Amino acid sequence: MAGASSQVFFEGTEKLLEVWFSSDSESPDLRDVKQEEWEKLLRIVRCEIISKTSNADMDAYVLSESSMFVTKSRFILKTCGRTTLLLAVEPLIQLVKEQCGFSKVLDVFYSRKKFAKPEQQHSIHQSFDEEVSHLDKLFKRIYSVPDWYDGAAYTLGRINKDCWHLYTMDAVGVMEPDQTVELLMWEMCPDTMQIFTKKVCKDGPEATKKSGICDIIPGAQIDDFLFDPCGYSMNGLLPGGYYITIHVTPEPHCSYVSFESNVPQENYMELMEKVLNTFKPSKFLMTVFANKESIAKDNHKQLENKELVPGYTRADHQFCTFKNYNLTYSHFTRPII
Amino acid sequence: MAGASSQVFFEGTEKLLEVWFSSDSESPDLRDVKQEEWEKLLRIVRCEIISKTSNADMDAYVLSESSMFVTKSRFILKTCGRTTLLLAVEPLIQLVKEQCGFSKVLDVFYSRKKFAKPEQQHSIHQSFDEEVSHLDKLFKRIYSVPDWYDGAAYTLGRINKDCWHLYTMDAVGVMEPDQTVELLMWEMCPDTMQIFTKKVCKDGPEATKKSGICDIIPGAQIDDFLFDPCGYSMNGLLPGGYYITIHVTPEPHCSYVSFESNVPQENYMELMEKVLNTFKPSKFLMTVFANKESIAKDNHKQLENKELVPGYTRADHQFCTFKNYNLTYSHFTRPII
Repeated sequence: MAGASSQVFFEGTEKLLEVWFSSDSESPDLRDVKQEEWEKLLRIVRCEIISKTSNADMDAYVLSESSMFVTKSRFILKTCGRTTLLLAVEPLIQLVKEQCGFSKVLDVFYSRKKFAKPEQQHSIHQSFDEEVSHLDKLFKRIYSVPDWYDGAAYTLGRINKDCWHLYTMDAVGVMEPDQTVELLMWEMCPDTMQIFTKKVCKDGPEATKKSGICDIIPGAQIDDFLFDPCGYSMNGLLPGGYYITIHVTPEPHCSYVSFESNVPQENYMELMEKVLNTFKPSKFLMTVFANKESIAKDNHKQLENKELVPGYTRADHQFCTFKNYNLTYSHFTRPII
Repeated sequence: MAGASSQVFFEGTEKLLEVWFSSDSESPDLRDVKQEEWEKLLRIVRCEIISKTSNADMDAYVLSESSMFVTKSRFILKTCGRTTLLLAVEPLIQLVKEQCGFSKVLDVFYSRKKFAKPEQQHSIHQSFDEEVSHLDKLFKRIYSVPDWYDGAAYTLGRINKDCWHLYTMDAVGVMEPDQTVELLMWEMCPDTMQIFTKKVCKDGPEATKKSGICDIIPGAQIDDFLFDPCGYSMNGLLPGGYYITIHVTPEPHCSYVSFESNVPQENYMELMEKVLNTFKPSKFLMTVFANKESIAKDNHKQLENKELVPGYTRADHQFCTFKNYNLTYSHFTRPII
């Protein structure tokens, strides 16, 4: 996105970290952390804040490389390019302990699609094994009694083709309804991708409207940004701590779009179709996470259908049961005609 | 098994290869391959034939390191220790082409649990990435038109704890009913393991009877072998091309037992319970493969139940849909009291 020219490879694939915190003290709030402290943390990750929007439940930040979301006790950081997200995990835990009194990590989810060019990443992110080793060591060091700690690392999909990695504490910590749906798309429709360049649109709002992103989840409070010469990021806020976030890497040789939301739905099909119709990827993978408290908890049953997405062939489909979450992973491709 | 003393580590965990062949010529038969040719092939793997049993549908071999099964068009080789199974794949394909006229590989399944000590393996088997790379290169080289070839590699379970690897062509080649259930067990009951030593039993048949293995699938034609000083292998043949095979590494510091069968059942619970009651592992993983033609194809629905196995806690549960097969992976542990 930022600074990416049409000749240079850009790794659109994001690293995604979600951490849930708890405390013995009375109602601490992650949103009490000052913006300058977040800026310090993001310097470690090698990105910076472009803009901020808030509602009663959440602060949302558009970053130079993707997005950050902060609610009372949940922190989400999603960063693309060559950012060094995992270097920020320990400083984050220290920061929210010192500033808010959060003494415990309830659960952690770190995930990403396989990078297109892993060799261009910082050493900590060059392989999932490295990332897992870093997180395992970190949590064992921080929590001197490792009995409760049970970091679990998974790879879904084909490790020799496209796949998606996940590290979680697999805890029963998060007891409120929670769900996350992601669509990671690549080999995008070149015509659609043109919208996300300064040649075609003057700014974020124009790209949001022209692309149809504004119609995906109507009513969201949108913060959008169009990079120069190309690239697009948006956060959409909804009441109740719900968000959507979309990031576009439009360059034809490395086109990539991600869609993520925690909007609770019993059935994500309509939402998925809207996203796919907006971006028209040749390939995409979908992950749906839902815990037992979520109305999306039985969503995986609908997702079992092989002919789920008209016009696409399903190459892989996996379903995982964790202690408190269900996860569905599916990989689709559009047959070459 | 063979030659393993109580002080030396032995890798009980097997490498398991299953290959289905087809041909344009008229009904070739893998069982036409002469035993001396199999012996040559097994020399590449670094193991040898101990004994052979046959019925109308299948030849079954007990090996110095596990087992081999040959039917008309399916070849199964399961080898433990430091054997070099993957070195035999290309010679196998050449052998059955030259000797029987099999011109095509219909499907391949290569699988194994994560090794306890991967560093003790031959370089080709030290990591799953190495194994995948070997198979990908091999199939691309053999079949000059790689369009139909789609080797798919998966890791199920926790890559930083216990997990299980699978490489398959994910073809729609095998059109007859097919199913395979495996129970891989470790941290075994030491008292039960004593049965599989020369101290307690004089030979295979005595160990088969004393352990209760004879009652797991009654009526099987059993070929069993007790190694000196300890270790046990058995093949059981049933009409119709069905087999069971059990291998025991009884040494307390590296105890491991595998059970495998292709007996078709709508529900594998009773069979599983028999196996678990026979061996009493502290930990085990279960895999159930069934294609769409199999009566076991809906087995995964029964296996979804978290409280499936009394006395055990399920740590992981994953379900995968391939082109023609369903696969369930579950990992259980007995809580420490």
